[in-house]
Amino acid sequence: MINILFAATDDLWRDYESPLKRALEAAGVAANLRRDHGAEVTDYIIFGPGGPVDDFTPFTRCKAVLNLWAGVEKITQNKTLTQPLCRMVDPSLTNAMVEWVVGHTMRHHLGMDAHIHGQDGIWRNDVYPPIAADRPVTILGIGALGAACGQALHQLGFPVTGWSRSPKDIPNMRCLHGDDGLNTALSGAQIVVLLLPMTAQTENTLNAARLAMLAPGAFIINPGRGPLIDDAALLAALETGQVAHATLDVFRTEPLPQDHVFWGHPQITVTPHIAATTRPDTAARVIAENIAGHENGAPLQNRVDRGRGY
Amino acid sequence: MINILFAATDDLWRDYESPLKRALEAAGVAANLRRDHGAEVTDYIIFGPGGPVDDFTPFTRCKAVLNLWAGVEKITQNKTLTQPLCRMVDPSLTNAMVEWVVGHTMRHHLGMDAHIHGQDGIWRNDVYPPIAADRPVTILGIGALGAACGQALHQLGFPVTGWSRSPKDIPNMRCLHGDDGLNTALSGAQIVVLLLPMTAQTENTLNAARLAMLAPGAFIINPGRGPLIDDAALLAALETGQVAHATLDVFRTEPLPQDHVFWGHPQITVTPHIAATTRPDTAARVIAENIAGHENGAPLQNRVDRGRGY
Repeated sequence: MINILFAATDDLWRDYESPLKRALEAAGVAANLRRDHGAEVTDYIIFGPGGPVDDFTPFTRCKAVLNLWAGVEKITQNKTLTQPLCRMVDPSLTNAMVEWVVGHTMRHHLGMDAHIHGQDGIWRNDVYPPIAADRPVTILGIGALGAACGQALHQLGFPVTGWSRSPKDIPNMRCLHGDDGLNTALSGAQIVVLLLPMTAQTENTLNAARLAMLAPGAFIINPGRGPLIDDAALLAALETGQVAHATLDVFRTEPLPQDHVFWGHPQITVTPHIAATTRPDTAARVIAENIAGHENGAPLQNRVDRGRGY
Repeated sequence: MINILFAATDDLWRDYESPLKRALEAAGVAANLRRDHGAEVTDYIIFGPGGPVDDFTPFTRCKAVLNLWAGVEKITQNKTLTQPLCRMVDPSLTNAMVEWVVGHTMRHHLGMDAHIHGQDGIWRNDVYPPIAADRPVTILGIGALGAACGQALHQLGFPVTGWSRSPKDIPNMRCLHGDDGLNTALSGAQIVVLLLPMTAQTENTLNAARLAMLAPGAFIINPGRGPLIDDAALLAALETGQVAHATLDVFRTEPLPQDHVFWGHPQITVTPHIAATTRPDTAARVIAENIAGHENGAPLQNRVDRGRGY
């Protein structure tokens, strides 16, 4: 019998208890899933932010910490964590992210807001916007999520450039890497999607100098992490029109404070961190199968490289 | 030397003269393209609405009438037209239509309007909308445009049903046909895309009875032809919420009159017949290659079946 400690908030326990028990049973894991296992008897920790565990030191028997979310920047800063850490890579989360990114890319590409806002009775049909083939899209961060978004955008006809810190080779997109590659990836981009992980190296990736490299009137789409953008530089670029619009799903402070300038800004659309919502049923299955595999001798899936931070 | 009469408006001549001359030359056609050939010497007519030709009777030598648009309902009502008629099937037009349909499908699917309109400082992230796999889309009309839209929506994860009058078999969608098939196709559909041709049989395809078959709160997307929808029935269905929103690109009268109720309706988005804009460069190439092929003995491409009307 494996002891699994659910270390997350009450809300998450309500959402996850049944799906996890079902998924563990389906995966053939004889597990005792509780919120109050003692540290010394805990075999695995399912972890969410805001939960009861801050100090991982007493969990001497723990074989892995399984994060409920894709983002792990909060837990990787915890110096007491020496156990293996796994990110959530939920296939339905990838689907949800692709849908959100494709949707907002198409929205900007087609200039939909003018129609949604402007139902003023004037028939303006003498506009020939570019088709997707003439609209270069750059994705910063081509891990599982960025790569999947790139494939979907390629299938719709967009020329896609993907950038990552280290070299990658992903079909159907121009793959660039490193500092020089970043400048090339941003030069002339009309739509930029941010899907980088949050690390010390990626903070303010889109700063004033890099925003200036984009095609004039570019669109920024950020479903990654708030600090990837220098907010003051973004506001300045919106002011000059260098950036036409930013659609932001993530922020330095969440929830975004009610009086924050982003809410009322006519060139910013705020969505409340909904781009890729983890769904309990599918996430529970991923966690249960990871534990089942590890118990049968397979390596842990989606293990975080602590040196890199993701 | 082949005499080609350009029978369309001044505006279109300005847009098309150079692209057509370039494309005819590239296709190896020795052509004399003019706006003032006599009827008795004209070999081909390139036709657009509002142009100078109403009576096709004197064009006794004319081998084909090549329409600049995909829609041919105006010209097929002309009883003097006995010459072969070809629709425009422009690959970039298909791309543009796919982009518009995918874009507005994603917009409704993701509930974007709430964010675009509602930048009120309230962080509402406790919503779990369905992913595409749980959002059935039905496309009425699965010709070249409808089939391409269906493939793109399938690739994004939507379960797609396609309906046509006669049986078709298109990969990656459930294909239905005939009157019974239409009822099945509409039953429970959450998003309906209209891409039927305009014929006597297709007028008011979406009437009150059929709107009632949809899933409550369905979305209607019409880039096909205005009369496919019974406007009064649509307004009634919006009133009850049976239809949540309609995005309409085409109307019984175009331009849509400035005082039309659709413009100000909070559940209707009007776009001014822009879903698939024919682009002169690519359309000219299609026409030139059709003429070149026909001169070399090949059958005309995209020939309209006058009995069916499309």
